[in-house]
Amino acid sequence: MQDGTFLSLDYPNVTTSKRGDVFARNCPTRQLLDRVGDKWSILLLGMLGEGEMRFSALKRRVDGISQKMLAQTLRTLERDGLITRHVEPTVPVSVTYAITPLGRELLGALQWLIDWAETRMSAVAQAQVAYDLRMAV
Amino acid sequence: MQDGTFLSLDYPNVTTSKRGDVFARNCPTRQLLDRVGDKWSILLLGMLGEGEMRFSALKRRVDGISQKMLAQTLRTLERDGLITRHVEPTVPVSVTYAITPLGRELLGALQWLIDWAETRMSAVAQAQVAYDLRMAV
Repeated sequence: MQDGTFLSLDYPNVTTSKRGDVFARNCPTRQLLDRVGDKWSILLLGMLGEGEMRFSALKRRVDGISQKMLAQTLRTLERDGLITRHVEPTVPVSVTYAITPLGRELLGALQWLIDWAETRMSAVAQAQVAYDLRMAV
Repeated sequence: MQDGTFLSLDYPNVTTSKRGDVFARNCPTRQLLDRVGDKWSILLLGMLGEGEMRFSALKRRVDGISQKMLAQTLRTLERDGLITRHVEPTVPVSVTYAITPLGRELLGALQWLIDWAETRMSAVAQAQVAYDLRMAV
């Protein structure tokens, strides 16, 4: 831990009074957008939105995620304050994840995106076929 | 172009009657979610939501995007039916991009995400500081 970490709790460029700008290269909002738009983040938040869940259950339910990617994404979500991690000192230890109020707020925003993707896939697929036909001429 | 492309216009697994499932590994919805959650896709759709724009203007306005990444993302967005590309046969040719109704629909969903990222960045930054302090103990 570096000296003065406590003093930097209020980042000068990310106070509540100043709104971020995702179009600006150096705005931390843009990195945030990239992280929360990540497929695995969205799927994990979606799962935890249904209730707290253990690591093994998340691994099973989010079809296709690797052990490493799951651990890494959960760590990022926890660091961003979107989920919490609770360790039960059993043998073996039982690790449970739960969504935070901030995470639930984000999930509310993401739900529009999930709904759009789930309902408009056929329109997108048709556009792709039309595009590929145009390009093939 | 392969034989029978016309016949596959209606993908058996992406009809309008069946809703996708982003949690299933092989559902095309998941790939779609990954593409539309991409930072550059979000920023470009956001820009084109304000009005049609030329390639050079997009390059200038979306701070930090490379020429290659811009061309590639625009192509994917066009193929997905989210934007259109119009070529004016001037010298040099002038290429203009515009959002489609489907793209505007997606942008409506993404706007919640952009708003969340722009307004909640400070809460996330504070969570990160707290996490780093816990990990440093």
